[in-house]
Amino acid sequence: MPYIGVIEGMSLKEQLDYLFNPRSVAVIGASNQLGKWGYIILARLQASKSKRPLYAINKKEHEVLGLKAYASVVDVPGPVALAVITVPFQAIVEVTRDCVRKGVKVAIIISGGLAEIGGEGAELEREIVDIARRGGMRLVGPNCLGHIDTHTNVRTVGFLPGVKKGNVALISQSGNSSQSVTHYGGQMGIGFSKFVSSGNEADLNFADYLEYLAGDDKTKVILGYIEGIREGRRFFELAKEVTKRKPVVIMKAGRTDAGVRAALSHTASLAGSDVVLDAAFKQCGVIRGEELSELVDVAVALLGQPLPRGRRVGVLAMGGGMAVMAADVVRRVGLEMPSFSPATMEKLSELMSVRWSRGNPIDPGGDLVSHHALWLMLEDDNIDAIMIIGGVGMIASFSNWVKLPPSAREDIREKRRAIEEVEVRDLEKTIELMRKHQKPILFVTQVPDAAPKGLAYKKLKENHLNFYSTPERAARTLKHLVDYSEYLGVARGR
Amino acid sequence: MPYIGVIEGMSLKEQLDYLFNPRSVAVIGASNQLGKWGYIILARLQASKSKRPLYAINKKEHEVLGLKAYASVVDVPGPVALAVITVPFQAIVEVTRDCVRKGVKVAIIISGGLAEIGGEGAELEREIVDIARRGGMRLVGPNCLGHIDTHTNVRTVGFLPGVKKGNVALISQSGNSSQSVTHYGGQMGIGFSKFVSSGNEADLNFADYLEYLAGDDKTKVILGYIEGIREGRRFFELAKEVTKRKPVVIMKAGRTDAGVRAALSHTASLAGSDVVLDAAFKQCGVIRGEELSELVDVAVALLGQPLPRGRRVGVLAMGGGMAVMAADVVRRVGLEMPSFSPATMEKLSELMSVRWSRGNPIDPGGDLVSHHALWLMLEDDNIDAIMIIGGVGMIASFSNWVKLPPSAREDIREKRRAIEEVEVRDLEKTIELMRKHQKPILFVTQVPDAAPKGLAYKKLKENHLNFYSTPERAARTLKHLVDYSEYLGVARGR
Repeated sequence: MPYIGVIEGMSLKEQLDYLFNPRSVAVIGASNQLGKWGYIILARLQASKSKRPLYAINKKEHEVLGLKAYASVVDVPGPVALAVITVPFQAIVEVTRDCVRKGVKVAIIISGGLAEIGGEGAELEREIVDIARRGGMRLVGPNCLGHIDTHTNVRTVGFLPGVKKGNVALISQSGNSSQSVTHYGGQMGIGFSKFVSSGNEADLNFADYLEYLAGDDKTKVILGYIEGIREGRRFFELAKEVTKRKPVVIMKAGRTDAGVRAALSHTASLAGSDVVLDAAFKQCGVIRGEELSELVDVAVALLGQPLPRGRRVGVLAMGGGMAVMAADVVRRVGLEMPSFSPATMEKLSELMSVRWSRGNPIDPGGDLVSHHALWLMLEDDNIDAIMIIGGVGMIASFSNWVKLPPSAREDIREKRRAIEEVEVRDLEKTIELMRKHQKPILFVTQVPDAAPKGLAYKKLKENHLNFYSTPERAARTLKHLVDYSEYLGVARGR
Repeated sequence: MPYIGVIEGMSLKEQLDYLFNPRSVAVIGASNQLGKWGYIILARLQASKSKRPLYAINKKEHEVLGLKAYASVVDVPGPVALAVITVPFQAIVEVTRDCVRKGVKVAIIISGGLAEIGGEGAELEREIVDIARRGGMRLVGPNCLGHIDTHTNVRTVGFLPGVKKGNVALISQSGNSSQSVTHYGGQMGIGFSKFVSSGNEADLNFADYLEYLAGDDKTKVILGYIEGIREGRRFFELAKEVTKRKPVVIMKAGRTDAGVRAALSHTASLAGSDVVLDAAFKQCGVIRGEELSELVDVAVALLGQPLPRGRRVGVLAMGGGMAVMAADVVRRVGLEMPSFSPATMEKLSELMSVRWSRGNPIDPGGDLVSHHALWLMLEDDNIDAIMIIGGVGMIASFSNWVKLPPSAREDIREKRRAIEEVEVRDLEKTIELMRKHQKPILFVTQVPDAAPKGLAYKKLKENHLNFYSTPERAARTLKHLVDYSEYLGVARGR
């Protein structure tokens, strides 16, 4: 079957607008039975309290979750732009035909049991794609979990409850993997513009969503989890264009013999050669993550950080052990740890006690350090990017969680307020210098959930400058920034 | 200076008992000034509410934090077993002499500015070691952060507030690195028996603590963070003996050119060749972690899991994407993903819907799975260890955090209780089979802090079977278990 791509007279954008901003939604297979997809999805759509008309389709019931139920989508009185199909695979053909008859523009097929099981399932999948294409309807899935648009307030996905509005889009062939991404994303302070669980990608595929998101002004960073690429050539040509304007970060699973086999039975994906893919990603500027958390780590940095001009990293750690480990990981990801300029060395030696490490990485030797050390690095021409371990210059923000004897409490509270004000002013200057010199600063804390809730921390979050939980995570993120910057020609190559 | 090792007439155990269970403690440099080590440490010792006599030593003050202050430790009326020294390095020699005169058995020198800064600092360090050795006193540090014994309730370390009683000991050359370990350890449900920040290791070194902990019946697993090894030969001979009885897990930092330089200025450690060290660790059965979190991940598994009999892993994932990623990481760490036996395949196919993945990894294809699938893997001779992604058979425990419309609440609560009871019974059987067949089960969840607080989760924690946050973490942990098991001759080699 040849690729069609556009329905006659309608651009991909117009088609996908029906998905991300539908005038009305029908849930086919809507259910009163707790735990069924037809229950969860309808309940989630109801919970959004949108004024968009919502229809329940169920052959047997008269009412589902308080809504009048129709036996078929054809019976719905008004037009239906988007249908979410949750019926068992045996009923898929009939229901797809009904959607076409009704003039539905996009159908999300949650149901599995199709190409991913091979044989008859694959046959069935081809049949419904055929029905949809001839009828001018696009399909999401099958074997998927729905989608989200936080800006238009449509959520057909039965979970991902905490997804906040923002500028990161996520396309995921796996439904449950997306949960990791959105959950950790929320922790790291990013919101999402759009999410789509693309499933088997029988009709609409990753490249289609990518093309649409490239033109979406709510989306600044595009994340993807994929197991296989449907239209390789189109995908890579498109990616090459998109990455010039927006970063694209992808985790591709199915890398090993066992992973490739598993991908085939999961989304009927043919994973192909991992080495070839790696090279292709590099050539078109796609940032490749090794684990799901990396997608989020890189997205946070892309939103908040300038792209570095080179690969020379300066490290400042509140503690010698962290300094050693950070130096190790910077080198191991392939970045450089240069010496500071003589002028910087002189100024640092004036600033710090005799116990400081006298070089890069900076370990103040047990003393507290203010932002001044950071500013010196930002102004040193030998340094392109910075990694900070521990709450440098944010002690008051951090110390909320340190328990001291009650006798000291009031004393501390007062001091903390005064120190916090200085810290926030210092941090503002740091952010200013970071932007001026185009040098990213990656912040690392060893105890990420120890709730640094002070003012300096708030200021960081406002600027998408969240903390990474380990030096390893920060270093690998920085490496991606450097590579992407070199790809775009912003940074000097090696 | 030759190594002395034992003070005349006293074994290492007797000496270190003075550190971990002292009859009395003096803080030299005790301070009323908020933020000073002499303040924080004394405050922490007071906060423990131990009945052990506690003395404040300060040259100028009459009272510190409500305690009578003595000008010198020599002036203390009763005996002093342990002294914690926080005075600036200029006063170290005098204070060390005072300790010897007083008959102090062990002194913890918090102060830095010694060997790690080279030159005069190194000179000074040699001098105090000399004074201590001639005077029959052992030294912890200098340039360290103190220690903890949760069982005898001594805490000289100024932070690490949440460290709970348990069976894991931690020796760390870096103070702040230990914070990562104890904090994450707490999250993963492990408690600590003893902690010591060993600093520059001018006198007592890693091997001494290791020897002591080998004989400590409160300690089942020994963790270490090191930058350099003082007495290589003794360390490795000792480690070879200890690892036969207790697992030793070490992160060695200072692996790259930049890390080696940083280690020298941090704890005056000569890091040596990393490749040689790696081989030496393998030969003496030491488990080597690549990052700090790995120490905890492995400790949790060592406490809760049987050692596997081989390297063949079965994977069960609640979701196809996770199945693919898990298969990838198992292969990438060097473990095997074998086929199930024909009998297991038959039983799994009976148990699951047509959509299941029909092989290893098991992806149930969107359906919920009970523990039965797990039991089949536990009983399959082709499988030595298991990795479970998602809350398999623990849905009710997990679903606490899923928000559904208020109308459904009471309904859910009732169902959940009933399901939870079944889940706990199933989990008990799983744990029984796990021990019977000596097959570790590593549990992974994508949303580790989404607070699964149900009964099944409690049961897991009671058995040290906590969740790993990513398949990568679980796989690398499993690899360490397999390697250690092969080292001990428990598992078949490759």
